[in-house]
Amino acid sequence: MARMPLVTASIVAALAFSIGASVADDAALRKQAQEFFQPLPSDMAAPEYPVTKNQAHLGRLLFFDPRLSIDANVSCVTCHQPSLYGADALSKSIGVKQRVQARNAPTVLNAALNLAGNWRGDRENVEHQAVVALTAPGSSGQPDERAVIGRLEQIAGYAPLFNAAFPNESHPMTVKNIGKAIGAYERTLVTPSAFDAYLGDNPNALSAAARAGLETFIKIGCVACHNGVGVGGGMYRKFGIVEDYWVATGSQDIDRGREDVTKDPDDAYVFKVPSLRNVAMTGPYFHDGSVATLPEAVQVMARVQLGAKLDDAEISNVVAFLNSLTGGLPAEFAMAPILPPGAVVVRKQ
Amino acid sequence: MARMPLVTASIVAALAFSIGASVADDAALRKQAQEFFQPLPSDMAAPEYPVTKNQAHLGRLLFFDPRLSIDANVSCVTCHQPSLYGADALSKSIGVKQRVQARNAPTVLNAALNLAGNWRGDRENVEHQAVVALTAPGSSGQPDERAVIGRLEQIAGYAPLFNAAFPNESHPMTVKNIGKAIGAYERTLVTPSAFDAYLGDNPNALSAAARAGLETFIKIGCVACHNGVGVGGGMYRKFGIVEDYWVATGSQDIDRGREDVTKDPDDAYVFKVPSLRNVAMTGPYFHDGSVATLPEAVQVMARVQLGAKLDDAEISNVVAFLNSLTGGLPAEFAMAPILPPGAVVVRKQ
Repeated sequence: MARMPLVTASIVAALAFSIGASVADDAALRKQAQEFFQPLPSDMAAPEYPVTKNQAHLGRLLFFDPRLSIDANVSCVTCHQPSLYGADALSKSIGVKQRVQARNAPTVLNAALNLAGNWRGDRENVEHQAVVALTAPGSSGQPDERAVIGRLEQIAGYAPLFNAAFPNESHPMTVKNIGKAIGAYERTLVTPSAFDAYLGDNPNALSAAARAGLETFIKIGCVACHNGVGVGGGMYRKFGIVEDYWVATGSQDIDRGREDVTKDPDDAYVFKVPSLRNVAMTGPYFHDGSVATLPEAVQVMARVQLGAKLDDAEISNVVAFLNSLTGGLPAEFAMAPILPPGAVVVRKQ
Repeated sequence: MARMPLVTASIVAALAFSIGASVADDAALRKQAQEFFQPLPSDMAAPEYPVTKNQAHLGRLLFFDPRLSIDANVSCVTCHQPSLYGADALSKSIGVKQRVQARNAPTVLNAALNLAGNWRGDRENVEHQAVVALTAPGSSGQPDERAVIGRLEQIAGYAPLFNAAFPNESHPMTVKNIGKAIGAYERTLVTPSAFDAYLGDNPNALSAAARAGLETFIKIGCVACHNGVGVGGGMYRKFGIVEDYWVATGSQDIDRGREDVTKDPDDAYVFKVPSLRNVAMTGPYFHDGSVATLPEAVQVMARVQLGAKLDDAEISNVVAFLNSLTGGLPAEFAMAPILPPGAVVVRKQ
């Protein structure tokens, strides 16, 4: 199904009403939540990016295969590990040749919901991100697209899989199709959680603490940016509205964010608002992974975006709400696929 | 259950009889196979290394956790990937800080069957291997055991798991117990295959080609070293009995093997005979990963160990037999465990 719009006029209206207002009771809170947020769809296919079974299957193999990278030791999984909820617990990922990425690796789970890829939105979608990563120096690090295809051609099992995934093409083993296949796979990686049940048909799916946290999350204004299907992921915003972010995060280097992409001074310190789905499992936090724990990250956000200081109970409740955004791992992500065998890098010694 | 002895007097007697003799029919071939080989046990626990559920569970988490390594980016899985049958398709693995290992990474599947760990047998068992890897420069690369424990102490979820796995210890979070837990997990990683069914109750579990290959495997003498439960893994032998191995493999550097461990000149070019279980999925081959494909590896072995040259049909049949040693992945290996969350490396920028 198509991606739902993350911000609508009715949400903006509801927001204007809700900030500063008290929520009378649980039913009213849930009704308000249903205006700000939507439950996850069953997949994240889009009209121009349909998910076919054969493409998603091929994409899953490619996602797990380190042999696509220049030294055959880094796969998508290296920075997007199933055991770590599609992220890697590092402030900044380490790609091929011990190269450190410029920013923190976002989880791949539900990533296709985002309005664009990466912290600065410089990747159009998951398909584009996958293609760029193949030749990005700190990801797979291949010198060019030809080198990627040359590697795949050495693994006999892949040709039939490309033929099956792209049956109308005479030469389907292309980098563009690698991106399509990995994208098709990523569009299946949805993680419905207790919060989706709460938005759906189960008012009791959230604990009292999580409901109190949700109320705070709405009331103080977190929801102004973190809303929609992704509880974020739908817009760009300046990080550090009330005060400079680095004062609160302790970041040593200052990242000007989207300004470096658009060259527009209005985009200084602007980043994509991250989705908060599975946020409890995907620390460290922010574009530079400068903050290790979720309570600390919540306090930083309240301070630099909203000029608020939360007390311990409020932080604990907001964290309880954020925990309700942790879903189960999709089976096709948790379970490693068996790759077509083939040794492609031989260091003779 | 205890590990079965890999070589017995009856095997030696059967071997003396079989080499050069023709095998009359399928039943006789199977009977002979049952003398040389044994099916896999259900696990590889040993009296001194029992497998408890809590230890194996903890070991599984530790096996998948990159945060134990110095830069938090290399786990046991890095070189022993589920998708690549517990190996990594590289000639020599790349560990922390882009450091290249001295020898090819053997698969972790069924590894507890081996008489010792690593190509030169310089690791006593899987427990010892796991402990050494924590501080080995090209594996996890930690400076000392204290650094490993310090890392684990930062991840709140681990303390209860160590307490549950080692309930009689007041301070169970030790490197020795990390080794025990990872070892307990590895002792569950058995991969019964079609060949086990054939040895057991199903004479039809092998194709005609695989049976022909098995006959060749026995007749020309591969079985002299590759026998027992592991179809190898039970003894040390010189690599290159008939002629120097590097002439056939094209190896550029010459590895003196076990001699460097024992300082005994009789051990020159001696290596542990590898188990052939899952060999079709775990190329490249030999201690230096110098040979990429299985047919080539079979020809090299026939040439340098036995002075034989196999024709194409013989190689194809032996490969069919070796394919019958590919088992299914254990579920607890294929399925990534969810790790206790916690960001432990923060590069502030």
